[in-house]
Amino acid sequence: MKSLIKAILVGLALSIGAGIAGADDRFQLLFSGRAKLLDLTYPINKGNAYWPGSAYFPFTLKNIANIDKDGVYSNSFSMPEHLGTHMDAPSHFVKGQLSLDQIPLTQLFGPAVVVDVRQKVDKNPDYQMSIQDLKGWEQAHGLIPDGAIILMYTGWGERWSDFNSYRNRDAQGNLHFPGYSPEVAQFLIKEKSIYGIGIDTLSVDYGLSKDFKVHHICHGAGKYHLENVANLDKMPANGAYLILAPIKIEGGSGGPTRIYAVLP
Amino acid sequence: MKSLIKAILVGLALSIGAGIAGADDRFQLLFSGRAKLLDLTYPINKGNAYWPGSAYFPFTLKNIANIDKDGVYSNSFSMPEHLGTHMDAPSHFVKGQLSLDQIPLTQLFGPAVVVDVRQKVDKNPDYQMSIQDLKGWEQAHGLIPDGAIILMYTGWGERWSDFNSYRNRDAQGNLHFPGYSPEVAQFLIKEKSIYGIGIDTLSVDYGLSKDFKVHHICHGAGKYHLENVANLDKMPANGAYLILAPIKIEGGSGGPTRIYAVLP
Repeated sequence: MKSLIKAILVGLALSIGAGIAGADDRFQLLFSGRAKLLDLTYPINKGNAYWPGSAYFPFTLKNIANIDKDGVYSNSFSMPEHLGTHMDAPSHFVKGQLSLDQIPLTQLFGPAVVVDVRQKVDKNPDYQMSIQDLKGWEQAHGLIPDGAIILMYTGWGERWSDFNSYRNRDAQGNLHFPGYSPEVAQFLIKEKSIYGIGIDTLSVDYGLSKDFKVHHICHGAGKYHLENVANLDKMPANGAYLILAPIKIEGGSGGPTRIYAVLP
Repeated sequence: MKSLIKAILVGLALSIGAGIAGADDRFQLLFSGRAKLLDLTYPINKGNAYWPGSAYFPFTLKNIANIDKDGVYSNSFSMPEHLGTHMDAPSHFVKGQLSLDQIPLTQLFGPAVVVDVRQKVDKNPDYQMSIQDLKGWEQAHGLIPDGAIILMYTGWGERWSDFNSYRNRDAQGNLHFPGYSPEVAQFLIKEKSIYGIGIDTLSVDYGLSKDFKVHHICHGAGKYHLENVANLDKMPANGAYLILAPIKIEGGSGGPTRIYAVLP
């Protein structure tokens, strides 16, 4: 009988050890260079997509000093806040809402919900995400968790290297790319407890939008947007976690944002 | 005997549960808005410290659109890469080393080692960290862990709101603020396995440095720097973890960086 108890004790001790190590791994791995990390941020350069309009302009890098001449390499740069992979702060469309530097850190960490709508976008570049698309995600993966950051995966990232194809303007100057529908924005704000929404196109409102309803709905509820999100083809639909790090411009309406994903 | 076995099993089951929950908490808390987070980043504005020299200039924000007139609020901005809370990429001083966008994500997550040298700086604003300061930290907290990010806490952050006091130039134009000694940089590179070093002043080399030896030593070994790090008065000496998120400027020598601390 003593040997039975001993066997039970040894067995359980081993499983405690394995259990704790397994659970602890995720935090330990993250801070010891061994987690699977993915960068959802495009490098910023003069080819980065920016919004059409005379006040917007490409990223500009100016050399200040170089090692051969000055012993040090250094640049200055100019850019619109809403260029490349960036965040829209709630103040972007709604007065009195938070600016970029005021968004609480806790809202910049959360589970990623990646909604793949590529098949619909293939048939219709003006596609807007439907509530059914969200319900489909929930049927496959369970309810959208509290504090989620929704990422709409349209496949538009394939066009990133060609600015004209990415903007996709027609002869009349109208933009054609997919986005969220106002109904989905409304549903996420009212029925779910999310932190923000993102997309792999130039805007969370689809290209043809003239009233930017999704911007008004989400920002009005204090939620941020991520635009021109990179590498969604490498993201799982569920199980990844995001860390968002916007440049901390005081009073900014938005700005370039580093987006890290911790993969399962 | 059966009841003894049962008691052992129940007790062990409870401790397994507690053990796993306790360990898992750190990752779960981080991604559910319940971790203790601290922002080591100053808001970027026109008052932000930048390096002296004719090619450097203050942060400039230009309004592009406002809600009353245009229905949307948006700005553009210009700044030197090395302004406010920022990272120096290894390419800043050493040719062939990594630019800002090339630093591996794994090196941007790690334990914080906060070395408090305020008492010495109080007596001497030109103080340089000594190897004894590092040894003192190790005597109190154990060996500097692999992948650590060292933060030199000089107390200089109290001067941040007054640019002149922060730069601290004398009548001859010489800067007076503390930094790392070249010996400490050499020791960290040779004897330890760190990811980078940071400080709450304008430069990891002290103000009087003319040859920027610390920059050359660290960058030559592929290590980055963090400068003008905020809120070190709120950091524990040991037990916090850092997440670094530099703006992803292609080929950048450095740039504004969001620094998050996960507190114990």
